[in-house]
Amino acid sequence: MSDIQRSGSGGRFSRTVVHGNIVYLCGITAKDLAADVTAQTRDILNQIDAALTEAGSDKSRILTAQIWLQNIDRDFAAMNQAWDEWLDKANMPTRATGESRLASPDVLVEIIITAAK
Amino acid sequence: MSDIQRSGSGGRFSRTVVHGNIVYLCGITAKDLAADVTAQTRDILNQIDAALTEAGSDKSRILTAQIWLQNIDRDFAAMNQAWDEWLDKANMPTRATGESRLASPDVLVEIIITAAK
Amino acid sequence: MSDIQRSGSGGRFSRTVVHGNIVYLCGITAKDLAADVTAQTRDILNQIDAALTEAGSDKSRILTAQIWLQNIDRDFAAMNQAWDEWLDKANMPTRATGESRLASPDVLVEIIITAAK
Repeated sequence: MSDIQRSGSGGRFSRTVVHGNIVYLCGITAKDLAADVTAQTRDILNQIDAALTEAGSDKSRILTAQIWLQNIDRDFAAMNQAWDEWLDKANMPTRATGESRLASPDVLVEIIITAAK
Repeated sequence: MSDIQRSGSGGRFSRTVVHGNIVYLCGITAKDLAADVTAQTRDILNQIDAALTEAGSDKSRILTAQIWLQNIDRDFAAMNQAWDEWLDKANMPTRATGESRLASPDVLVEIIITAAK
Repeated sequence: MSDIQRSGSGGRFSRTVVHGNIVYLCGITAKDLAADVTAQTRDILNQIDAALTEAGSDKSRILTAQIWLQNIDRDFAAMNQAWDEWLDKANMPTRATGESRLASPDVLVEIIITAAK
């Protein structure tokens, strides 16, 4: 068996890669791209929970997060609302948030997670 | 000998840093910046192959990739064409792609790779 | 004791997360946001030195850096001036620099560091 486990692989990248005790998640975007940024963020965070569980981790073991917002001036507070509701406040990762236009104009937020198993 | 090996060091950063069994590559840009985004991406992916080989890795062992495009609306499909040709479909990394203006206006794409040795 | 140590935790993320022999720092921004980009970068690099020391590391052990500039055309050279003064030239990390608007318009630069303990 390989020392690298890959899952959720579409045609172009894997959703999850596990190597040693580290779990890498792809940049996750919302399924419902008609939703507002708070709802898109909640959707992403739910997907992160599911992907981490499948990989033998959970949100208390996230090491670092990058958050990319299509429009940071407009959407920073609304994204943070969903983040704050979801966050395990006893086990907060490092985080960096920047503005980046994303794969399509209706993708308002994308989150990249690295966690420990 | 240090537990960290650095190579391809210019004046400002290293091209490759190896620590334990992890290989970090710098954000790689194309050598021919007059080329279009597909050609710039192919050039970058060739450089990635060479840097990984030198570090004792290869593209089947890439863990995660970040791709920064100067103009994601215009260039996402053309970048993906080069990516899809090159990708080891049995061993896909996680990936996140966002828009970011880069070191100079003719740098259309930059790719950051983390791999296992 | 957990295998993950977190410190400098505010309400929303940790400043430093240590797991195994890897130190993750949050995206660090300057304290004086009225300062120009060179001064903001120096401030950030001083904060990085302090956070790494606290975590049992130092700048000679940085593995990789991401630098996000609010205006890369205008500020790339001025950021690099502070970087070049500070850099341990015998131990350069990999680096990627892109443009990203940040948490507020006066945040001119943000730096994300991963280091070895």
